[in-house]
Amino acid sequence: MAKLVQFDRLGGAEVLSLREVEDRAPGAGEVRIRVDAIGLNRAEIMYRDGAYFYQPAFPSTLGYEAAGVIEAVGEGVESFTEGDLVAVVPAFLQSEYGTYGDHVILPASAVVPRPANVDATTGAAVWMAYITAYGPLAESGRVRPGDYVLITAASSSVGLAAIQIARHIGAIPIATTRGRGKKQRLLDAGAADVIVTNDEDLPARIKEITGGEGVRLVFDPIAGPGVETLAQGIAPGGFLVVYGALDPRTTPLPNAQSFPALNSSTYTLFEITADPERLARAVAFVNAGLASGSFTPVVDRTFDLTEIAEAHRYMEANGQVGKIVVTVGHGAA
Amino acid sequence: MAKLVQFDRLGGAEVLSLREVEDRAPGAGEVRIRVDAIGLNRAEIMYRDGAYFYQPAFPSTLGYEAAGVIEAVGEGVESFTEGDLVAVVPAFLQSEYGTYGDHVILPASAVVPRPANVDATTGAAVWMAYITAYGPLAESGRVRPGDYVLITAASSSVGLAAIQIARHIGAIPIATTRGRGKKQRLLDAGAADVIVTNDEDLPARIKEITGGEGVRLVFDPIAGPGVETLAQGIAPGGFLVVYGALDPRTTPLPNAQSFPALNSSTYTLFEITADPERLARAVAFVNAGLASGSFTPVVDRTFDLTEIAEAHRYMEANGQVGKIVVTVGHGAA
Repeated sequence: MAKLVQFDRLGGAEVLSLREVEDRAPGAGEVRIRVDAIGLNRAEIMYRDGAYFYQPAFPSTLGYEAAGVIEAVGEGVESFTEGDLVAVVPAFLQSEYGTYGDHVILPASAVVPRPANVDATTGAAVWMAYITAYGPLAESGRVRPGDYVLITAASSSVGLAAIQIARHIGAIPIATTRGRGKKQRLLDAGAADVIVTNDEDLPARIKEITGGEGVRLVFDPIAGPGVETLAQGIAPGGFLVVYGALDPRTTPLPNAQSFPALNSSTYTLFEITADPERLARAVAFVNAGLASGSFTPVVDRTFDLTEIAEAHRYMEANGQVGKIVVTVGHGAA
Repeated sequence: MAKLVQFDRLGGAEVLSLREVEDRAPGAGEVRIRVDAIGLNRAEIMYRDGAYFYQPAFPSTLGYEAAGVIEAVGEGVESFTEGDLVAVVPAFLQSEYGTYGDHVILPASAVVPRPANVDATTGAAVWMAYITAYGPLAESGRVRPGDYVLITAASSSVGLAAIQIARHIGAIPIATTRGRGKKQRLLDAGAADVIVTNDEDLPARIKEITGGEGVRLVFDPIAGPGVETLAQGIAPGGFLVVYGALDPRTTPLPNAQSFPALNSSTYTLFEITADPERLARAVAFVNAGLASGSFTPVVDRTFDLTEIAEAHRYMEANGQVGKIVVTVGHGAA
């Protein structure tokens, strides 16, 4: 038997239920993983709520990230063998696979090796965040050394990864946060400057920080009408990258009826994880940063798998700085 | 004395008035041109109406394009001398300079040489259209040989230039037009296919034409909510370029709340004309196409300068295919 988190209807954290389910052997192209730690993402909350870009078929499991050990491999899987330390990257739909469990089946294409010196909690906290930030900040070639980058909602795990990636490539990260509470932690995390959006005029502060020039790229998970304000802080020829939709309102195309010209892209990490070549490059980049010590995933707090609903509520309360990780005990089971 | 079209209030074509004004000598960096032909643009109608991105200071002249002969040069102007055949490119604000007149003062930075074999009517019909289309289709490197390009509102002078530029670089132009009336003329002008948007399902037709792949780039002056439909026809990794705002409604950022990732840019030719290096490259590109015969500006109809209001009304009636040109007689004046 395995334990899996499932839910039978859309709703709040209370719909999540930890259930004993029949174990199965991995099919062709699949692996079975003993899960030691699970990384939580806002994507799972949106999926549970019905606000994600695809809908569950019930009963549905969920979860995009985990770290653990290979227990079994299915037909045709040659890249892994029993006992390998691994991590899971989001390269599947939660309506087909999920990581919220103690023993889970996943496609081998969504699994990457985990070095022995990367513990499970850290391994579960890396991939969603760093691959998401890698695409627009590093892979695209849009951000050059010395460029200013504005990172909104910067205390999320993706925001913190973006700060580290900007530093790693020689760019200058400016972070935004709504209240003053997280400002010092963002400076400690590597932000060159922090704009407190509840208190400060964002375009004016960007102008001041960048000497009037504006930022080269804005990396924003919020979307909605606020992108018009963000656009005012972008240098000519610069980029707005929207990688989430925390604001459910319609997002306008900035500067459609005015000036200057602006490049606005929507983006998610699936652009990368669904393409084996791009994923391999992303993994090589992130591993380079982990090896050099540039990339140090920030874990805010851990919960036990039995506390999964509390862990979701904690993320929804929005007090965290960095990743929320759920650990899985394998004591007597 | 010179004749200049001026207006004293925002409004319809009736606000335009052809007036005798005192001649003046060109100042530093300026030239005086004897105008032989004026190219008309929708930008001038929007400026006259108060719908443009900056407002007139009255009395205001207007006009972005012309062809004629240098009559006098101001201090510091070394690139031109009296008698040179020239054309005018839109590299100034209509609130500061304008081309609607028989003798006009313009900044030398907005003037390009006109080869002797390019008559004034043709010379007045080239630059706004071809530089606008050159940016996203040729300069950006986004469109590669063999790529499909969707050109909306394709019977405008910019749309027709875009068709020719797409052909010139080996891409495949698909044109849209609202009604059936202009379909054959767009095919004759080089469109590989024409989608009649009043009658046909645009995403379905694009799918059919491109074998399911979608287009690489959409080049659209309409904007507004219709961009969501255009986005459905774009191949993964493709581009939406919005270069106008004929639809005054808010333009959404396509795919902000869905998939796949999409690059949406706003753009106007001022990105190019305000930068001497980029303008020089654009002029070289357009002259290459004119010399080889790839680029043949389409002139729909000519009016006399005394008929300027009728010329504006004709453009507003939207029946033209290609450029409307106003010619200037210099008989007894």
